[in-house]
Amino acid sequence: MDLDTGIVQHAFDRAVALEPLAPGAAGAPRRFRGHTSADYANMVGPFGGITAAQALQAVMLHPDRLGDPVAFTGNFAAALADGAFTAEAQSVRTNRSTQHWVVTVHQPDAAGQDVVVFTATVITAVRRETWGATDLAMPAAPAVDAMPRLPSNRRVAWFNRYDMRVFEGPLPREWNGAETPGSETGLWVRDEPPRALDFASLTALCDVFYPRIWLRRATFTPIGTITFSVYFHADGASLAACGVDHLLAQARGQRFFNGYFDQSGELWSAGGQLLATTHQLVYFKE
Amino acid sequence: MDLDTGIVQHAFDRAVALEPLAPGAAGAPRRFRGHTSADYANMVGPFGGITAAQALQAVMLHPDRLGDPVAFTGNFAAALADGAFTAEAQSVRTNRSTQHWVVTVHQPDAAGQDVVVFTATVITAVRRETWGATDLAMPAAPAVDAMPRLPSNRRVAWFNRYDMRVFEGPLPREWNGAETPGSETGLWVRDEPPRALDFASLTALCDVFYPRIWLRRATFTPIGTITFSVYFHADGASLAACGVDHLLAQARGQRFFNGYFDQSGELWSAGGQLLATTHQLVYFKE
Repeated sequence: MDLDTGIVQHAFDRAVALEPLAPGAAGAPRRFRGHTSADYANMVGPFGGITAAQALQAVMLHPDRLGDPVAFTGNFAAALADGAFTAEAQSVRTNRSTQHWVVTVHQPDAAGQDVVVFTATVITAVRRETWGATDLAMPAAPAVDAMPRLPSNRRVAWFNRYDMRVFEGPLPREWNGAETPGSETGLWVRDEPPRALDFASLTALCDVFYPRIWLRRATFTPIGTITFSVYFHADGASLAACGVDHLLAQARGQRFFNGYFDQSGELWSAGGQLLATTHQLVYFKE
Repeated sequence: MDLDTGIVQHAFDRAVALEPLAPGAAGAPRRFRGHTSADYANMVGPFGGITAAQALQAVMLHPDRLGDPVAFTGNFAAALADGAFTAEAQSVRTNRSTQHWVVTVHQPDAAGQDVVVFTATVITAVRRETWGATDLAMPAAPAVDAMPRLPSNRRVAWFNRYDMRVFEGPLPREWNGAETPGSETGLWVRDEPPRALDFASLTALCDVFYPRIWLRRATFTPIGTITFSVYFHADGASLAACGVDHLLAQARGQRFFNGYFDQSGELWSAGGQLLATTHQLVYFKE
């Protein structure tokens, strides 16, 4: 709680808060200090979506940023250790309406040596109004209020930071190794407590799907996302219009082959706007 | 032609040939010199697929590479000028079975200053044999031999480096502005002349789809891919098994919004293996 205002900061805002470090030479990467968040802890290390949001935030906070994010790709090079990290954001190219960023997240290793734990490339752009169309149909789903919220989870903190109402492809009830023919999950989801949607929170929301291989095989398989992309089909006004409403999120695997599977998904506003398409490649250990 | 052997090098091999420059300090990026290829020229600058393949090749040629590519994301920061470029490949993290790479492609600008024209992140991995499954169905398509090859194109050199047989969503015959309801294209495609498939050529093949907005609107709209990802669902043996066969390639747009649209696609072997899934975000100028 802020003692002056009485306002309690949302856990997401605390998690993505970055402290600017002293700027280096002109053109050098801008460095920020952040911390992993116990609120968004996963079984081991942080929820991947929050790490991605923190990396995006280093671009959002950069004083030279041009426009809003249109594409984000983050690569999970190593499990983050609980504690502080340094995020470096560098604009490597600025065009008339687009800007290309490279982000690198570092932590000290066991020997105290700074090592890379996450890399990202981000493209920001100033959009102009143009013709538009959506070629995907929004999936049919029951009304949000007609569905129960998933119960809280004592072992996985980040899970409790979201209100999730799964209407398709829930987590298997029994780990009985029964293969299902598909790997699609659909859910309504928003931050819990509610928080107005922005680019950072939308990025994290794109990673809320539990591992497709768990659904496919009803087997608890250790996994780790290795690369994760978000294409934003929204501007600030589109996100503001969503407010604190639930989003409709859907994702599926396409191929599982020799230790890796991919996942493709979409996030829709309650009003039927396709806000983001998202893709990831996930390592699994059989 | 090699005067000793009488073997004519394939245009693709000439295009992705990189010359290693003197190594720097230990841990510094490895630098390679390459050239844009007139054989793969686009209307303006090079075919994006060949630029991506050249960037991947800087990782493939790196002496420290661990395993085969599993994921590639390239970002088109600027139009490449015809001529030489420098590709820097740096392994930023090596784990037990995976390795993370950052690639940066530079060219001198008009003032002779070295500037970034392309960035990429690549993940390579040593795969182990595991359970596997493909959740997508291979699209139905006429037999390769039952279809005519697209005629050659005098204005777009790279187009003639591929044998393409489109069975769905061909380039509009008339630019009459008639909107079609979908934006899917399906084709059989291979290198022309035939060349045994490898990771570099598969990467380039993932970018052979003409811009989805041209199909959707039957309007000649200037476009440029800004980010492009390939997830490889294949190892060296899977690619070798394809030999010089055509691949079945299919792609579609999902949303077109204020200057950008996305594209998702799949490349299948003739034998029905899903070799790669691919995604891109494309700028369009209305």
